Amino acid sequence: MDVAVVGVPFDSGVSYRPGARFGPAHVRASSKLLRPYHPALDISPFAAQQVADAGDIAVNPFGIADAMKTVELAARDLASGGTKLLTIGGDHTIALPLLRAVAAEHGPVAVVHFDAHLDTWDTYFGEPITHGTPFRRASEEGLLDPERCLHVGIRGPLYSREDLREDGVLGFQVIHADDYQDATVASVVERMRHRLGDGPVYVSIDIDVLDPAHAPGTGTPEAGGLTSRELLHTLRGLVGLDVVGADIVEVAPAYDHAELTGIAAAHAGYELLSVLARNKEATTDN
Amino acid sequence: MDVAVVGVPFDSGVSYRPGARFGPAHVRASSKLLRPYHPALDISPFAAQQVADAGDIAVNPFGIADAMKTVELAARDLASGGTKLLTIGGDHTIALPLLRAVAAEHGPVAVVHFDAHLDTWDTYFGEPITHGTPFRRASEEGLLDPERCLHVGIRGPLYSREDLREDGVLGFQVIHADDYQDATVASVVERMRHRLGDGPVYVSIDIDVLDPAHAPGTGTPEAGGLTSRELLHTLRGLVGLDVVGADIVEVAPAYDHAELTGIAAAHAGYELLSVLARNKEATTDN
Amino acid sequence: MDVAVVGVPFDSGVSYRPGARFGPAHVRASSKLLRPYHPALDISPFAAQQVADAGDIAVNPFGIADAMKTVELAARDLASGGTKLLTIGGDHTIALPLLRAVAAEHGPVAVVHFDAHLDTWDTYFGEPITHGTPFRRASEEGLLDPERCLHVGIRGPLYSREDLREDGVLGFQVIHADDYQDATVASVVERMRHRLGDGPVYVSIDIDVLDPAHAPGTGTPEAGGLTSRELLHTLRGLVGLDVVGADIVEVAPAYDHAELTGIAAAHAGYELLSVLARNKEATTDN
Amino acid sequence: MDVAVVGVPFDSGVSYRPGARFGPAHVRASSKLLRPYHPALDISPFAAQQVADAGDIAVNPFGIADAMKTVELAARDLASGGTKLLTIGGDHTIALPLLRAVAAEHGPVAVVHFDAHLDTWDTYFGEPITHGTPFRRASEEGLLDPERCLHVGIRGPLYSREDLREDGVLGFQVIHADDYQDATVASVVERMRHRLGDGPVYVSIDIDVLDPAHAPGTGTPEAGGLTSRELLHTLRGLVGLDVVGADIVEVAPAYDHAELTGIAAAHAGYELLSVLARNKEATTDN
Amino acid sequence: MDVAVVGVPFDSGVSYRPGARFGPAHVRASSKLLRPYHPALDISPFAAQQVADAGDIAVNPFGIADAMKTVELAARDLASGGTKLLTIGGDHTIALPLLRAVAAEHGPVAVVHFDAHLDTWDTYFGEPITHGTPFRRASEEGLLDPERCLHVGIRGPLYSREDLREDGVLGFQVIHADDYQDATVASVVERMRHRLGDGPVYVSIDIDVLDPAHAPGTGTPEAGGLTSRELLHTLRGLVGLDVVGADIVEVAPAYDHAELTGIAAAHAGYELLSVLARNKEATTDN
Amino acid sequence: MDVAVVGVPFDSGVSYRPGARFGPAHVRASSKLLRPYHPALDISPFAAQQVADAGDIAVNPFGIADAMKTVELAARDLASGGTKLLTIGGDHTIALPLLRAVAAEHGPVAVVHFDAHLDTWDTYFGEPITHGTPFRRASEEGLLDPERCLHVGIRGPLYSREDLREDGVLGFQVIHADDYQDATVASVVERMRHRLGDGPVYVSIDIDVLDPAHAPGTGTPEAGGLTSRELLHTLRGLVGLDVVGADIVEVAPAYDHAELTGIAAAHAGYELLSVLARNKEATTDN
Repeated sequence: MDVAVVGVPFDSGVSYRPGARFGPAHVRASSKLLRPYHPALDISPFAAQQVADAGDIAVNPFGIADAMKTVELAARDLASGGTKLLTIGGDHTIALPLLRAVAAEHGPVAVVHFDAHLDTWDTYFGEPITHGTPFRRASEEGLLDPERCLHVGIRGPLYSREDLREDGVLGFQVIHADDYQDATVASVVERMRHRLGDGPVYVSIDIDVLDPAHAPGTGTPEAGGLTSRELLHTLRGLVGLDVVGADIVEVAPAYDHAELTGIAAAHAGYELLSVLARNKEATTDN
Repeated sequence: MDVAVVGVPFDSGVSYRPGARFGPAHVRASSKLLRPYHPALDISPFAAQQVADAGDIAVNPFGIADAMKTVELAARDLASGGTKLLTIGGDHTIALPLLRAVAAEHGPVAVVHFDAHLDTWDTYFGEPITHGTPFRRASEEGLLDPERCLHVGIRGPLYSREDLREDGVLGFQVIHADDYQDATVASVVERMRHRLGDGPVYVSIDIDVLDPAHAPGTGTPEAGGLTSRELLHTLRGLVGLDVVGADIVEVAPAYDHAELTGIAAAHAGYELLSVLARNKEATTDN
Repeated sequence: MDVAVVGVPFDSGVSYRPGARFGPAHVRASSKLLRPYHPALDISPFAAQQVADAGDIAVNPFGIADAMKTVELAARDLASGGTKLLTIGGDHTIALPLLRAVAAEHGPVAVVHFDAHLDTWDTYFGEPITHGTPFRRASEEGLLDPERCLHVGIRGPLYSREDLREDGVLGFQVIHADDYQDATVASVVERMRHRLGDGPVYVSIDIDVLDPAHAPGTGTPEAGGLTSRELLHTLRGLVGLDVVGADIVEVAPAYDHAELTGIAAAHAGYELLSVLARNKEATTDN
Repeated sequence: MDVAVVGVPFDSGVSYRPGARFGPAHVRASSKLLRPYHPALDISPFAAQQVADAGDIAVNPFGIADAMKTVELAARDLASGGTKLLTIGGDHTIALPLLRAVAAEHGPVAVVHFDAHLDTWDTYFGEPITHGTPFRRASEEGLLDPERCLHVGIRGPLYSREDLREDGVLGFQVIHADDYQDATVASVVERMRHRLGDGPVYVSIDIDVLDPAHAPGTGTPEAGGLTSRELLHTLRGLVGLDVVGADIVEVAPAYDHAELTGIAAAHAGYELLSVLARNKEATTDN
Repeated sequence: MDVAVVGVPFDSGVSYRPGARFGPAHVRASSKLLRPYHPALDISPFAAQQVADAGDIAVNPFGIADAMKTVELAARDLASGGTKLLTIGGDHTIALPLLRAVAAEHGPVAVVHFDAHLDTWDTYFGEPITHGTPFRRASEEGLLDPERCLHVGIRGPLYSREDLREDGVLGFQVIHADDYQDATVASVVERMRHRLGDGPVYVSIDIDVLDPAHAPGTGTPEAGGLTSRELLHTLRGLVGLDVVGADIVEVAPAYDHAELTGIAAAHAGYELLSVLARNKEATTDN
Repeated sequence: MDVAVVGVPFDSGVSYRPGARFGPAHVRASSKLLRPYHPALDISPFAAQQVADAGDIAVNPFGIADAMKTVELAARDLASGGTKLLTIGGDHTIALPLLRAVAAEHGPVAVVHFDAHLDTWDTYFGEPITHGTPFRRASEEGLLDPERCLHVGIRGPLYSREDLREDGVLGFQVIHADDYQDATVASVVERMRHRLGDGPVYVSIDIDVLDPAHAPGTGTPEAGGLTSRELLHTLRGLVGLDVVGADIVEVAPAYDHAELTGIAAAHAGYELLSVLARNKEATTDN
């Protein structure tokens, strides 16, 4: 098994609209129209590699710490033998145990984090592990390579000027949603690839990186976001980087319409699977 | 202040669809069409008694135990001096701290519990305090008068035959939703009043006591429920009983349509306020 | 032409949710599944009488007084030659000009008014003609037979005890929504027929007479209403009474779902057309 | 395997709103809250009998005749060895091949058909096999016992007076939706049981037997229908009859809201499974 | 009559979400805000030419072949005398009979096909004529000029690498949705005009060429599509080309929200009518 | 108080979809996720200046003239002492009394008007003051500086060629929505700033300036509009101009989904508040 797609129906880490617990089922249902061949990358991701649906990880909705352990253990178990995980959330809290599992195998990794929000806040109601904090905790735990982390799609107000400064200390650079406005996607990709460099890369996509028009079905929407076309283009730009794992989180179906958000998430997943397939092919060819 | 209406935007105790954290705002918005005079009870509930909107209790979404303490303390504080609380949830977990506050003042109380579900289950994922367990915990803690508790509107499948037996041991009798089908509401009210008797009564309304047609905006809908007309009639039958507190819970606006569920909840609250006003009037008259 | 169905896309008289201006188009669209034969009344309403769709009356949305004149003139014009009108609203304000047109031809009429609300209030923001006042104005103008008027489906809170008293003075009796709960529809029909008696009868249906579960798409929904089955049964009970005109108002499609409300309104209209056809047949037979 | 639950994602036989092809997935998703024990029937339907989800039958959406063959063959195959089928539609066209399969094993059967519509029309656009014709075709083919067939829930307009007469000739009696209004469910059940008698019974539930308030998610909704409580009560009344197969059809999720219709359908299926379990238990006990 | 706008309420050729049968009514309703003058093209399309609403073509929903004949005959009939058709679908299957009618008069035509999908697949469930195949069949039948056909907006996965190769053999070039990302619309228009050249051009717009954010109300949505602004701009670029007919298909209102998709389709139709008016004016001026 | 945010729940001036009367409540609810610090402008708008929520102005829904007076008086009252108003509509009619109040203090002002429509039409049904006419009336009354007014985002059909000519006479230049297509936002901002110049500027944002994908919840949507990112960028370009007041109008929640439109409006308001804060800071620094 080259890649396992696994769901984490967990949303007890959210601060605003809940509902991402139903994300895995929704994204699966919204992926029914995906066909086998990716023309732009000239690859058949399900033929070029072994992809399995590993089902959902059953997690305790009433205890974040317990749920985190469950996710980490399940992720380590699934990833043993070199299988890469594409995890469908669930809220963003789960990025922490997923990064723990990834770093256990690969050491500190670069993270390319697509999101409207930094998710490097500290605590909320005194709780250190929520959907607003995974990358701060991950950085503190040494799971990240502080020279190679990057947010993409950040926008909207922050708590204070300190947020961005501290975020930089934790190891992140930022490509703002605004940076897409008057620049080409090609130039954004170039910046992204330069930052991520050569080592292992973990991709974390909060679907709210998309504009609410493209992803209404999420918990903390912010105006001024990316189009789905911009996101898919940018993801395609990851070909050739050493992607070792990925997640797509914060799809909250109760706020979706006509599977709009689910389809965007499913296509993002398809891009990632195609990138992984291309990478595998390249490795095998050598 | 005779009555305080207070919101508890908390839904971390739910087992299925979350979203009741937005219940208080939704029920308030849905109450805009309520006018001051209740013709069937011939009372003006906001004139006959002092009713205040006490706002929302800020609760920790990441720790059930902590949230329970916050709710209990706030409820005790608000209720000091004899103010009665009409609490707008939030999920049903909050009935436990509310009953703790009520029993602290009144001793063990009768509960009339409107719901599709018993909510006397034991644990879920090992967690003893969730929205499926408040009345078991309350009974175990001695907060309930086991001769005078009653569920109204129960329907749908259970886990096992034991559920009902244990529920009886905890002090509850049951009026099933089915009992409304071929009987008059008057006869249901008669049974209810007989069971509740003369002492203090706490009223707990899970909006899913209504059929999903009447209350789609809730977390665990069950077909075959009450109409809003049946619920309002039944509540009106509480006049003269010693109602010492009440809650209306499990309104999840993300699943509502055109404020259907919110309006039903707001009307239920208005019935309760009118019952309290009639009771106050009766007391004053004597 | 025995009957003209005419729309009035007007909602400038509403006090809360607007949108009934789109009612006529919505009810027409929702009537597509109606078939030609009414089995319970054993009549084919479009065969037994000439029914025409007279389109919509273009009304000024920016001036209530002007719009009232337009509606009255159009109604008089359409009704000349004995054609009966089934008017699709639009908000309830239009009942006033419609009653003016009807009374001009028939003298004071009985009104059977299906609604959650009395609609005999006086003014709102100083404005005497709104959707909350048509029957007070009509009574004051002598358009109604004060011995034969009746509300059906009234429920919910009022402004004060005076509302009902004044309503009685204006000529109305009340069958409350609650009266349907523990009585048969047959007995309700009996009361209705007794009150309406032998003279000309005007039927005015505010779709909010239905419970919000059955008619979410309306402007001022109240919990505890009629089912569509109860309404249709009751309307069927009008056979043999001298129905001289009718309206169905307050369908606000923006709040409807899956044409639920539109279909209920369309079926109500079909019942009325069938009653008219039966009456015509009876007259012709004699 | 005592019972197989099988989906038929087919809606090419519909005359109005399509979408029932997504019914099987929707009803399965809406059944997640069902618990194992049915208290009113005192049975655990999944413990008392072997129930398997047989997945969906892949059918050709572009050819009704071809699809009918596929469904009949699959049904015969699944039912071989005495397994009973609970089929989730899909539109009502599929009742014909299902009845062919049932009659092949049991001979002519009684049908109890819950629906707003007779479904004994002849052709539409010249096509003899559509969702409006399965019971006419079945009767013509001798699949039905003409002394024991029954519609329940019929309402709304027909094409002509002939519809009901011909329907009677084909072997059906009718319990109208109106019959529920002023009678008890117990008396309706009594009539149903009397008509169905002692032989094999096939149960066919078009979800539009429910009022649109209870089942907006369907193709040809009619006002004035049953509540979900009435339907579930009535189905429970089938205990002891020789039910040999059943279907639940016409759930069209695109028109549903908050899984309202899906939940009603899932509960109806649960009632049927519980009836089958009780019957099996009774047989085994003897 | 210069142009006839005609609806085809047919969706029996769809492979996934049905519902486009209600497209014509929806697009008409969504066109109510269109005003008479197009400022960018400086033309009043309803004044500069005779445009008539020819209503809907009644088609058999149960037989694709039969429906195709009906559409072709109706199209030929309407187009006799040189009237150009703007057809509102319905699903994309109808492009085949429309092209047959167009080619009968004009010989092989260029097609500019706006769509997320190629629609040059071969068969599905053995059926050669579906909404995924019209342009393959048209090419095979010699209805297309293979040097001048073009897809615009293609994106998403395909079945295999062969899809694009075969598509080219059938006569199509491709402007991908991605080509809009880092290029100007002006340059896309230039490519389009170059490909289409001087002969007769048929324009076929599948509304799913738009991103799901701009057109949720369709049957097979794909992320990463065009904005409505890009589509309208591109259509405007057709001025001066010999447009001989057009269709706008795959609007499925059950999945639309707030007429979003209907309005985009109506505006696309308005652009086409304005292009036709400009062309007529240019012809007349010469 | 530097800035007052005030709502005007009024929509009696609309010509098509009503509902903007609920705009103020909706935009407030949709602003809950706004955080205190604006990173792009490096300002904390609620710290750098005193911002108060002044609640809603109660206006007569039944008389436009009366409502206009109420709004103007309330605006003058609030603005006395130099407080700037950010008004949340309500429909666009209210821009007229707001401009009267602004001009009373500042003399004729520049208006930058974000909208799909010109709103300089003359009368509708003979009524001179509607949501389609505020800027014609304002120009006629001398409230505008005819050398410095500008529409941004105009698109879609007009009534006639005269519309634009007359609009120019009234003092407006136009940046079309199309101008965003192949130009940078920076260049649009440059044009805007050049037109607005140095004097007092009033900002009026009709939310339908956004594409319906970004703002479905509005009364007269037009395809081909701005993205929310384009709008926010452009607003940010107002820094340094002498903004003396602003409104955000035409948010009609009944047509919104998942607060999409409300969030875009709230973010637009946040940009404006941040611009005002920056301006105040600049003034203070000098």
